[in-house]
Amino acid sequence: MKAEIIAIGSELLLGDVINSNAAWISKRLAALGIDVFHHITVGDNPRRIHEVVAQAVERAEILIFTGGLGPTDDDLTVATLADYFQTPLENDPASEESLKAFFLARDVAISPSNFKQALRPVGSIAIANPVGTAPGVFWDASDKTIKADKPLFMMFFPGVPRELYAMWGEGMSHLKAKLVGRGESEQVLEARFLNFFGIGESKLAEKLNDLMNASNPTVAPYVGRAEVRIRIAAKAATSQAAQEAIEPVKTEILSRVGAYYYGEDDETLESGVAQLMVDKGLTVAVAESCTGGLVSSRLTDVPGSSAYTHLNMVTYSNAQKSRQLGVDPAVLETHGAVSPEVAEAMAVGIRKEAGTNIGVSLTGIAGPEGGSHEKPVGLVYIGFDGLSKADSADPIVKRVTVNSRFSRQDIKYWFSHYALHYLKLYILGMLDRDETNTLAQASHQATNQSVG
Amino acid sequence: MKAEIIAIGSELLLGDVINSNAAWISKRLAALGIDVFHHITVGDNPRRIHEVVAQAVERAEILIFTGGLGPTDDDLTVATLADYFQTPLENDPASEESLKAFFLARDVAISPSNFKQALRPVGSIAIANPVGTAPGVFWDASDKTIKADKPLFMMFFPGVPRELYAMWGEGMSHLKAKLVGRGESEQVLEARFLNFFGIGESKLAEKLNDLMNASNPTVAPYVGRAEVRIRIAAKAATSQAAQEAIEPVKTEILSRVGAYYYGEDDETLESGVAQLMVDKGLTVAVAESCTGGLVSSRLTDVPGSSAYTHLNMVTYSNAQKSRQLGVDPAVLETHGAVSPEVAEAMAVGIRKEAGTNIGVSLTGIAGPEGGSHEKPVGLVYIGFDGLSKADSADPIVKRVTVNSRFSRQDIKYWFSHYALHYLKLYILGMLDRDETNTLAQASHQATNQSVG
Repeated sequence: MKAEIIAIGSELLLGDVINSNAAWISKRLAALGIDVFHHITVGDNPRRIHEVVAQAVERAEILIFTGGLGPTDDDLTVATLADYFQTPLENDPASEESLKAFFLARDVAISPSNFKQALRPVGSIAIANPVGTAPGVFWDASDKTIKADKPLFMMFFPGVPRELYAMWGEGMSHLKAKLVGRGESEQVLEARFLNFFGIGESKLAEKLNDLMNASNPTVAPYVGRAEVRIRIAAKAATSQAAQEAIEPVKTEILSRVGAYYYGEDDETLESGVAQLMVDKGLTVAVAESCTGGLVSSRLTDVPGSSAYTHLNMVTYSNAQKSRQLGVDPAVLETHGAVSPEVAEAMAVGIRKEAGTNIGVSLTGIAGPEGGSHEKPVGLVYIGFDGLSKADSADPIVKRVTVNSRFSRQDIKYWFSHYALHYLKLYILGMLDRDETNTLAQASHQATNQSVG
Repeated sequence: MKAEIIAIGSELLLGDVINSNAAWISKRLAALGIDVFHHITVGDNPRRIHEVVAQAVERAEILIFTGGLGPTDDDLTVATLADYFQTPLENDPASEESLKAFFLARDVAISPSNFKQALRPVGSIAIANPVGTAPGVFWDASDKTIKADKPLFMMFFPGVPRELYAMWGEGMSHLKAKLVGRGESEQVLEARFLNFFGIGESKLAEKLNDLMNASNPTVAPYVGRAEVRIRIAAKAATSQAAQEAIEPVKTEILSRVGAYYYGEDDETLESGVAQLMVDKGLTVAVAESCTGGLVSSRLTDVPGSSAYTHLNMVTYSNAQKSRQLGVDPAVLETHGAVSPEVAEAMAVGIRKEAGTNIGVSLTGIAGPEGGSHEKPVGLVYIGFDGLSKADSADPIVKRVTVNSRFSRQDIKYWFSHYALHYLKLYILGMLDRDETNTLAQASHQATNQSVG
């Protein structure tokens, strides 16, 4: 089975909205072994929608539409498709009831145009929308195609991502029932992502070249905002068989580049660090300067973060670094706020103030102003203290530079990524004492390299 | 002139990468008055690329390709297009030199496959890539089309967004030169966004219905993560004339819904608040619980934020709320950490501790656990203190609830949005003392409403 994903909406063609739905849907279809060969975006224009549908019907058996289900005049999707397949519209009583209930619950008057949303082509099924007013539609239009042996299944979802997400399961249950009814062989594709930080895509590709040329499972790299992900995908008769084919490939990859690995699939650096702290019963406190609270915010993105964090501080000024964290003003004066000496003192200071096992500090230059030749934009010192065997403070400080051409927000993000990654290594006893290490070098190169 | 944007890459069809480039490019073409009627995504497959190009050449005069310019075997874009137009490839000496320099500067050995990136179709022009290895291509292939009167301009950019962004200007200078050379009438489209928070899209549409039915300038709403944006777009002979046509429409819109407006185009809530504080010479300190540092991080996303923020704290535990901010343990015991009383005490406490003009506090429940019937997930109290005419502390606390079905990260984001929005009103003396106000109600409804 081949699917085509068609987004309808002039706002997409004007560049005012990014079409993230196509990727979201594609990932879920791939997991079912359904191939997607085209994503199409077209405006709210009946003639151009007809043209696009005519091409899609030639190429695919499953068409998934997003957008154009709203109550306004330029929401044309269902009516235009019904017109294309010369099928009248009918009212869906359940959708109408749920529209009324939706507005009643919010004490808002329902407008006549809202009832338009309860219309669907004769012979189709409504998909309930638990979080908005626009119902979706599942439509088996196999009898509408010229080729008698070719099925045609269409689904219509709203363009608002959270509505699509909430409605997807019901839509897919209709599709799966049809596929089972047709006795479609169900070759299953399973995919797993391995997440890496501190190694560039080209370096990863070099180390995994032979695996990337294999066909089942396939191995391919993807570049994220600061991380690189390796996707292992296997096709097999059952989900279990596909998973079993993935396992040895994963083991082989980790034997080569495991030092840079931090988690699978949706595991993030922060969730990995959180799990580690919970497992070991450790607590952490962060003192931030240039990142302004981003490391703290990411640490608390993980549910249950109160188990390991009680107090974090953003000491933006020198005065507050001294007052809150006990950084010696003479040290600030001599070395400047962005220095290994200050990072050390901040890490020790926040640990003592918060009474946690670990103190983490960041002091650097996020730009775009404030850099110098000696201390450029993109430079940060990250300090760690608390886990040394020595009884007294024994901080480790890492020096990191990231691409100074990045935006201020990207630089903050990269700094926070390094802090979380080093924190993990620090907890694992794997953070070396060299101020600048090969990891930083490798990663910095990675940010400068192109993949086309 | 009509343009079509074609993304090439199987990773897009597998859903592993979101195609944000299409929107980015579309926005820039719209500003030049160039219409975009289709976005297409196709995999790394020569036959399907040929099919897509054949359709695009029928529909458009400008084709913009992204992706598939890397050094690996599945990077096929340039070779496949050269093949389609039966044009040989030639080596670009400048690109080759710059590739060598790129690798030399990074002390990395250049691989033979990298030199593939220096190839471009005979008669085309290379576009330099200042941040990666893959050069782009501008190609006037008007002589390759069957219709003698139809021009065809193609541009090839890497799929990595920051490389596209860095190369766009040079590519466009080639295109503009061609358009001027052809004496293309240059009707200019100018667009401006007005950003709103605290009012839903349907409510905005209701208030601006007559304007939204006009054709030049056009007025249309777009829903963001927590904000709603109104886009005003005008076409005219000159950029100035288009801007002048926008101005009265903007004035009219602000006269109707100005209470919810916070800025134009790329202005964010945080940049608006920052500007206001700089203008008034005010300083602020934030004490966060549930948002974990996100408000602080957003305040420091604005360059120059050290002018108005010196110290922020994340007091996650009750003990630290008392220790750092002086919240009375009895108040915490009696009312619980998520209460107006604690929000008050936190706002007063952080202001005093930081010695700033304003103290802001947040205490709430970001979920997914920890909610109760009385204090559900999505509830937050936001406190403000410092600007009262009274000499002593005189805090204002606002109670906000957002959709409890949102993810933990989205809830944190909404809470931070409210905090910044109310901070602006507080500075302007417009924050009323009712704990729950109509703004919160309106916005909460907005999050539940659908636009299809």
